[in-house]
Amino acid sequence: MKCKKCGGKASVNMRQHKLALCKEHYLEWLPEQTERFIKKYEMFTRHENILVAVSGGKDSLGLWDILVRLGYQADGLYLGLGIDGRRSPLGEGINYSHESQRLAEKFANHHGLKLHVVDIEKEYGQPIPVLSEISHRGHGKPCAVCGLTKRHEMNRIARDLGYDVLATGHNLDDEAAVLFGNTLSWSADFLLRQSPVLPSASGLARKVKPLCRFYEREMTAYCLARGIEYIYEECPFAEGAQSIYYKELLNKLETDRPGAKLTFYLRFLEARKSGELFVESHVTHGHLHPCTKCGQPTSAPDLCSFCRTIEKVNSVPAV
Amino acid sequence: MKCKKCGGKASVNMRQHKLALCKEHYLEWLPEQTERFIKKYEMFTRHENILVAVSGGKDSLGLWDILVRLGYQADGLYLGLGIDGRRSPLGEGINYSHESQRLAEKFANHHGLKLHVVDIEKEYGQPIPVLSEISHRGHGKPCAVCGLTKRHEMNRIARDLGYDVLATGHNLDDEAAVLFGNTLSWSADFLLRQSPVLPSASGLARKVKPLCRFYEREMTAYCLARGIEYIYEECPFAEGAQSIYYKELLNKLETDRPGAKLTFYLRFLEARKSGELFVESHVTHGHLHPCTKCGQPTSAPDLCSFCRTIEKVNSVPAV
Repeated sequence: MKCKKCGGKASVNMRQHKLALCKEHYLEWLPEQTERFIKKYEMFTRHENILVAVSGGKDSLGLWDILVRLGYQADGLYLGLGIDGRRSPLGEGINYSHESQRLAEKFANHHGLKLHVVDIEKEYGQPIPVLSEISHRGHGKPCAVCGLTKRHEMNRIARDLGYDVLATGHNLDDEAAVLFGNTLSWSADFLLRQSPVLPSASGLARKVKPLCRFYEREMTAYCLARGIEYIYEECPFAEGAQSIYYKELLNKLETDRPGAKLTFYLRFLEARKSGELFVESHVTHGHLHPCTKCGQPTSAPDLCSFCRTIEKVNSVPAV
Repeated sequence: MKCKKCGGKASVNMRQHKLALCKEHYLEWLPEQTERFIKKYEMFTRHENILVAVSGGKDSLGLWDILVRLGYQADGLYLGLGIDGRRSPLGEGINYSHESQRLAEKFANHHGLKLHVVDIEKEYGQPIPVLSEISHRGHGKPCAVCGLTKRHEMNRIARDLGYDVLATGHNLDDEAAVLFGNTLSWSADFLLRQSPVLPSASGLARKVKPLCRFYEREMTAYCLARGIEYIYEECPFAEGAQSIYYKELLNKLETDRPGAKLTFYLRFLEARKSGELFVESHVTHGHLHPCTKCGQPTSAPDLCSFCRTIEKVNSVPAV
């Protein structure tokens, strides 16, 4: 297989794009494509300050790397979730959060970038697995509390530190799996909200997903080619998650019909835009008002879900 | 497993409904449910004349049996497609159309019902496989010409013989597979048209699918319990069809999550009805006009697709 640009030996073959590239041209192609998506979906400009949510995984570190290479002003935010084998149902030896933090910091130091680190336990008294256990949210899995916390904290930091936009590393596999799940149940609210860009609203930062059109394996190839060290392991709590099940199903479809995943996602975005299939998104924040504690918008009468969770945890006497 | 109605030994267990029934109560339950769907979707009344498209398979024979048991006025229509090992690319020994016609006629005779039989070769000079071959439609498979012909002929007979409504035996597996395919490509036209009832329009008969909420295996169980003899084989051309691929994928989903297929289809219908997700169906027949040959509505300027196909076939000199 030859590189389409230089005729040299190709190292990445993308069947879905009918495109093979050598390492050097792949490292050019991926940021070029990212730039194209940033413009197409009007995500942000070079005059804006971007906060990249960095987990230590390939997608978020790859995203940060690409944005900086493209000349964007992008700082990182690492949330220390405390998913380690200490004061949690995880076995000893699990070192997920420590390891991912080490890799995020290593990347930032190596490139001379600014990384904000927020430690959930220091901020709120307990790590995610314990917050989840005490609050009894999420059917025995910390994923619900973890998602709630991440959304809250990302928004809080972006707002408090005056960033224009919050960027996350969701790739095509993530977005297609979410879309697939929402389609199976035809959830209007979720289907009408899923987008590469969520505009800012009172108290909510603009959110963008510049990698939403890249396959997961394309991001892996990028990080390997760039020599970016990232955490290989999935979160130990991810096992058995719905999203992983949908990803497997879509992977089967993709194997049988290369490009099916991309088509599924892109045609959805096109259908949303054309106005021929879906009603106009009725995302209104009219019924939201500021949480009396943190000030972030909520539909609850008093405290937002996150602050209620923290309050509940704090009201339980320590064991 | 006990029958929920009488406590006797259950012979059908429907995990998706959390319902097990003995043979006798199953044979009551299925028509009751059908009656419920007919009313819910306002398909037809007992004063209307129904034409059931009968293929000789379990779904269409089961449907005809149910409608007659429920007291509806339902005649049958059998289309002889000529899918047999004679003058076609099929091997000798294939006897698909002959066998299905024999079973449809046997059922009609046994119950003293009226069955219209239309033989495509007698009407149009060639059986489906040859029509397909000569017309070069459908990438080497006769399925495109077969579907076109069936739609045309069902509508022609329903209209010419004055039936109020045309009923087909599409089951949940069929409908979910079609929906799944249309969703993967987000085809607005198809998604906005898929429905248990298509109202009549100038020159087009009303079309209904009373079995659209029954799993394929529920129809198999019904026919076995009723002693209805039907053709087990799939059409020999069906192998490798897209719809079969989607059915397999949905079956995997259903195995892992009983009820997923039904939820996928029903929530879609609900979402369509609620108006919260989809735009109103813009099915307008305004741009259609009658085919200059057969009078059925078409968007083409002169002949409809079917008449064009037949004209093309007739213009080719016999070999």
